Amino acid sequence: MMGTVVRNIHRADSGAVAALERLGVATVHEAQGRTGLMAPYMRPLWRGARIAGSAVTALCAPGDNWMIHVAAEVLKPGDVLVVACMSENTDGAFGELLATSIKARGAKGIVLDMGCRDAAELSEMKFPVWSRAISARGTVKATLGSVNVPVVVAGLQVRPGDVVVADDDGVVVVNRVQAAEIARLGEEREKKEAATRVRLQKGELGLDIYGMRKPLEEKGLKYVDGPLEG
Amino acid sequence: MMGTVVRNIHRADSGAVAALERLGVATVHEAQGRTGLMAPYMRPLWRGARIAGSAVTALCAPGDNWMIHVAAEVLKPGDVLVVACMSENTDGAFGELLATSIKARGAKGIVLDMGCRDAAELSEMKFPVWSRAISARGTVKATLGSVNVPVVVAGLQVRPGDVVVADDDGVVVVNRVQAAEIARLGEEREKKEAATRVRLQKGELGLDIYGMRKPLEEKGLKYVDGPLEG
Amino acid sequence: MMGTVVRNIHRADSGAVAALERLGVATVHEAQGRTGLMAPYMRPLWRGARIAGSAVTALCAPGDNWMIHVAAEVLKPGDVLVVACMSENTDGAFGELLATSIKARGAKGIVLDMGCRDAAELSEMKFPVWSRAISARGTVKATLGSVNVPVVVAGLQVRPGDVVVADDDGVVVVNRVQAAEIARLGEEREKKEAATRVRLQKGELGLDIYGMRKPLEEKGLKYVDGPLEG
Amino acid sequence: MMGTVVRNIHRADSGAVAALERLGVATVHEAQGRTGLMAPYMRPLWRGARIAGSAVTALCAPGDNWMIHVAAEVLKPGDVLVVACMSENTDGAFGELLATSIKARGAKGIVLDMGCRDAAELSEMKFPVWSRAISARGTVKATLGSVNVPVVVAGLQVRPGDVVVADDDGVVVVNRVQAAEIARLGEEREKKEAATRVRLQKGELGLDIYGMRKPLEEKGLKYVDGPLEG
Amino acid sequence: MMGTVVRNIHRADSGAVAALERLGVATVHEAQGRTGLMAPYMRPLWRGARIAGSAVTALCAPGDNWMIHVAAEVLKPGDVLVVACMSENTDGAFGELLATSIKARGAKGIVLDMGCRDAAELSEMKFPVWSRAISARGTVKATLGSVNVPVVVAGLQVRPGDVVVADDDGVVVVNRVQAAEIARLGEEREKKEAATRVRLQKGELGLDIYGMRKPLEEKGLKYVDGPLEG
Amino acid sequence: MMGTVVRNIHRADSGAVAALERLGVATVHEAQGRTGLMAPYMRPLWRGARIAGSAVTALCAPGDNWMIHVAAEVLKPGDVLVVACMSENTDGAFGELLATSIKARGAKGIVLDMGCRDAAELSEMKFPVWSRAISARGTVKATLGSVNVPVVVAGLQVRPGDVVVADDDGVVVVNRVQAAEIARLGEEREKKEAATRVRLQKGELGLDIYGMRKPLEEKGLKYVDGPLEG
Repeated sequence: MMGTVVRNIHRADSGAVAALERLGVATVHEAQGRTGLMAPYMRPLWRGARIAGSAVTALCAPGDNWMIHVAAEVLKPGDVLVVACMSENTDGAFGELLATSIKARGAKGIVLDMGCRDAAELSEMKFPVWSRAISARGTVKATLGSVNVPVVVAGLQVRPGDVVVADDDGVVVVNRVQAAEIARLGEEREKKEAATRVRLQKGELGLDIYGMRKPLEEKGLKYVDGPLEG
Repeated sequence: MMGTVVRNIHRADSGAVAALERLGVATVHEAQGRTGLMAPYMRPLWRGARIAGSAVTALCAPGDNWMIHVAAEVLKPGDVLVVACMSENTDGAFGELLATSIKARGAKGIVLDMGCRDAAELSEMKFPVWSRAISARGTVKATLGSVNVPVVVAGLQVRPGDVVVADDDGVVVVNRVQAAEIARLGEEREKKEAATRVRLQKGELGLDIYGMRKPLEEKGLKYVDGPLEG
Repeated sequence: MMGTVVRNIHRADSGAVAALERLGVATVHEAQGRTGLMAPYMRPLWRGARIAGSAVTALCAPGDNWMIHVAAEVLKPGDVLVVACMSENTDGAFGELLATSIKARGAKGIVLDMGCRDAAELSEMKFPVWSRAISARGTVKATLGSVNVPVVVAGLQVRPGDVVVADDDGVVVVNRVQAAEIARLGEEREKKEAATRVRLQKGELGLDIYGMRKPLEEKGLKYVDGPLEG
Repeated sequence: MMGTVVRNIHRADSGAVAALERLGVATVHEAQGRTGLMAPYMRPLWRGARIAGSAVTALCAPGDNWMIHVAAEVLKPGDVLVVACMSENTDGAFGELLATSIKARGAKGIVLDMGCRDAAELSEMKFPVWSRAISARGTVKATLGSVNVPVVVAGLQVRPGDVVVADDDGVVVVNRVQAAEIARLGEEREKKEAATRVRLQKGELGLDIYGMRKPLEEKGLKYVDGPLEG
Repeated sequence: MMGTVVRNIHRADSGAVAALERLGVATVHEAQGRTGLMAPYMRPLWRGARIAGSAVTALCAPGDNWMIHVAAEVLKPGDVLVVACMSENTDGAFGELLATSIKARGAKGIVLDMGCRDAAELSEMKFPVWSRAISARGTVKATLGSVNVPVVVAGLQVRPGDVVVADDDGVVVVNRVQAAEIARLGEEREKKEAATRVRLQKGELGLDIYGMRKPLEEKGLKYVDGPLEG
Repeated sequence: MMGTVVRNIHRADSGAVAALERLGVATVHEAQGRTGLMAPYMRPLWRGARIAGSAVTALCAPGDNWMIHVAAEVLKPGDVLVVACMSENTDGAFGELLATSIKARGAKGIVLDMGCRDAAELSEMKFPVWSRAISARGTVKATLGSVNVPVVVAGLQVRPGDVVVADDDGVVVVNRVQAAEIARLGEEREKKEAATRVRLQKGELGLDIYGMRKPLEEKGLKYVDGPLEG
């Protein structure tokens, strides 16, 4: 199956994508039952970006970024490029020239399980990048991988067309066909949290708001007055 | 002992706390004989915060933040919440809602040996957070731990009421009863360093200021003119 | 050989150094055939610095920064101090006082395979630091190392007088006698990239600009239209 | 979807399973085009085991092994239990009692992305275990996960019924429906390697056997006689 | 407090120590409510040892093993030497000569948060060692630490005289005054487990033996028959 | 310089090599002033091997083992193959077929800063391997590196012809021209240690044998009788 490029994919509904982007990673992750989150080593190059889009996936060999060039051709405006690597690797597979290229093709950002370079230039361009490392180490174009096949990135399976949501908290992925439903659940959660926030700001406790006192007592939590010595 | 909440603790003298906060982590660590420092993986969420306060401690199960809610009730204004975890875990046990809650209760910040989330919101709120990771991964409320018992956080034993000092250099902990003495030693050190700084700025060498030439020679240090070939 | 200080070293041509500094790490690394890069754990303390200079090297024992004091004396204006450690260690071997000292002696920055401390002060001073960690952990002055001997730092051999180039992408080292030639190759590359950038901005693909379609086909890359189900 | 147990799964053909078991991890991995391998942190508890079987999957919360108990009921003789965890966790979720239980139900072994304990007893029992750690840390039974849903383990997607092959080299997973074909390809490869082995034992070089001299020359490899000085 | 040697300590009851040794790490850890376990990076040098004894503690500087020599003098027959390090360090602080020395003084083994060397010789001697690394890197004798003060080792506070139990599963520490009570609880647990083991061997399920079906249902676990497609 | 093969190298004196092999890693490392040791992540595949030989070096791209095939041709009986990688990589670049090949050419073993595979077969063959990982992940033959150039392996510079000594403690490298002298110093050290061992076995303390009491006192070490409370 290695060496396959799928040109066209089903993309997610643009309204759902917009809603998920506004909600952000933490809320979306909760809305889909605490699933779909990449491992926390996947970090933004610069703070403050928040994007969502349909995933175009690429699978690269370690030290090789050929498939990113191949993927560039099949990107559509609004997509997020998601790059997996066949083994653990931090080489700088993505830099300012490739960013210029995929930005020109309409990509909103990139999530790559390899390194990025040109950190200063990418930050100045405000091009959103999530990666496992920053490394100037150059890559070759020698080994085939694939484009738009299911990949595992940072411990998470991503299929082409899934919605990728990324911000300062990391990266969460939503199944394409569930995107609208998850957006709806996220918005409900957001409303509920807004009400809770007001109560917490006044000094009310989560113990009371969430009704935790009884289950804590049933589990056997004991209070002692203290202070203890020692 | 798991499942115990100690409501009241001895807190450190507020004057000593204020002095330690002004001195900062590196100076306090030196002042107490190079002890009391957490491991360097404990990093600030955002740069520029410097806080000190009495430790209220919580011990959580991995993937579970229930005891942070329990701890919120026993916090007093000026405290720093210190959260340990029973095993290595990076889940996002603390976010913007909990920050809103403990801020309303008077906490100056949190040091947690787990992950935090809502990184953008917490940074905007300027709520001081030191953690081992940023992760949106949600946590459950299912397993008891304890509050205000001694805990080990980032390789360091912390007792309730100890003074926690945290800034961009990391986190140092001072024994409650020694806080005033350590503050005094820190201030002495600061004065001495101010004098040294002036001499170093003029180009004088540490070799001379600290009298290192003789011990280096006794240890056998040899100078050669060079340049060497090769 | 431990316990040796070489006072004088051959330094690189200042014109070449200036050219390499302007080019930056990623371009210099490519210009010398993708060699000479330190491992990506070597990170800048603050973003935005870019320096180049001749390496003065120091080799320290773990938890010991004595040789940095010794090295300070042999620094010349424009040098970059490069500190290796005998074993893996993150202790805070370098802080604001030492920065004040080596800055007064003319050093442009430091690259150290240990930790740095006084992160806030060093950032405010805008003194360029690349290190493997930030840690307030204090160090002793007890064990001899050497100054201006070849060292291995972050997986890379550095000889005294080699040109060290460091920016947000990491640290690259250029052989002293090849510095001018590498600078020339880097400038050529830069020109070529400028032309490529214009084409990429217009949406032309790397596949076409770099002539990748034929080699990809020869390797066996297959395109399918999709979308695939599943 | 969390909190779902699928009782019945399609299992792989037993002949194909037996063939894959005999071939071992390295050969199977090559036979399916260098795909399907778990990350190398997944290590055998003891050396010398080699197993293959249909995967029954379980997804656990960190510090919680409840779903292993649930999975035990749906195991059939010859299965391999594959345990994923919702976040990175090394707690000892599997020990001698659980091994006794799943062995009694017919399981051939376990691959778990958590820790195991009772290392001495499990080794003595010769029960095959691959895990990310050895840890006595006990786990709770408090949070639901799922059984027989697709999971990601050590960077690899595993679906229930896929064939898991594990030995001293790690763990490789083969798509259920391709199992017979991959076994066939592996056997071909094995024959070819046997012939190559004989030639290599006589001192013939891979350079000649694999016809590498020409492509190396085309890539630009240069030979110099040496010895070089320095 | 650095630079202090406490000559005499309270030691644990020898009967309790013997009982805890027989029970082993996993059982003791459970018996004391899942507390007291060192982090899993603390591994035995060779498999098959199981020891327990009163802790004599030493705190060393990184790259320095001077305090192990100092500790040797205060060891009594049956003790376990527990070595902490001021910062993360893997240098080979303990080898065959030191093992010969502390064995002659009666030590049953060593647990060190540094590296050990002479791996072949120590294994042949059957001297029990738990360490964070194997490294031949030599250490100096230059910096003071302390002996028989409380230390943190692998994430766990150890006080002099606490009972250290170590085997292939890692290292657990029991409070000296609770040793007999924990031993008693461990023996109870052992008996209970023996009964459970017999039932599990017959194929009975943990689901039934531990009464898990009802709580699982209450939490919302759903069974579907399957097989599912896809 | 990438893409260069040096056919002939100066090799070390065979008597010195034999002497260094007998002494082993820890003694040789001490004999050359505690230098020349690789980082401790470089571990033997199986316990009990001890080898020494002249280094033939190869530099590979990540995920690529082409240069090992190239190096096989220039090996001479008694050599040790030392493989560096351009960036951090654990792929299985070396297995049983390559071992068969280089064994037939006379190699005594291999030290590789990548992964090895066929762990069971290599262990059965008793072919000595030191690597950073065990991984079945296959590698390609696509990118040039070099053979018999200086390389950095596990934090250590290795030049072709240097003597590599490897055993259960790791890997140490000795400069070719100093090999005989280091062997002599190692033998002296060995004799001295034999005498010390006898005294330690009788219960004499290092404190007395090495004359440590006075320097410890001068540094300020204080003894207290204890036991302390708490």
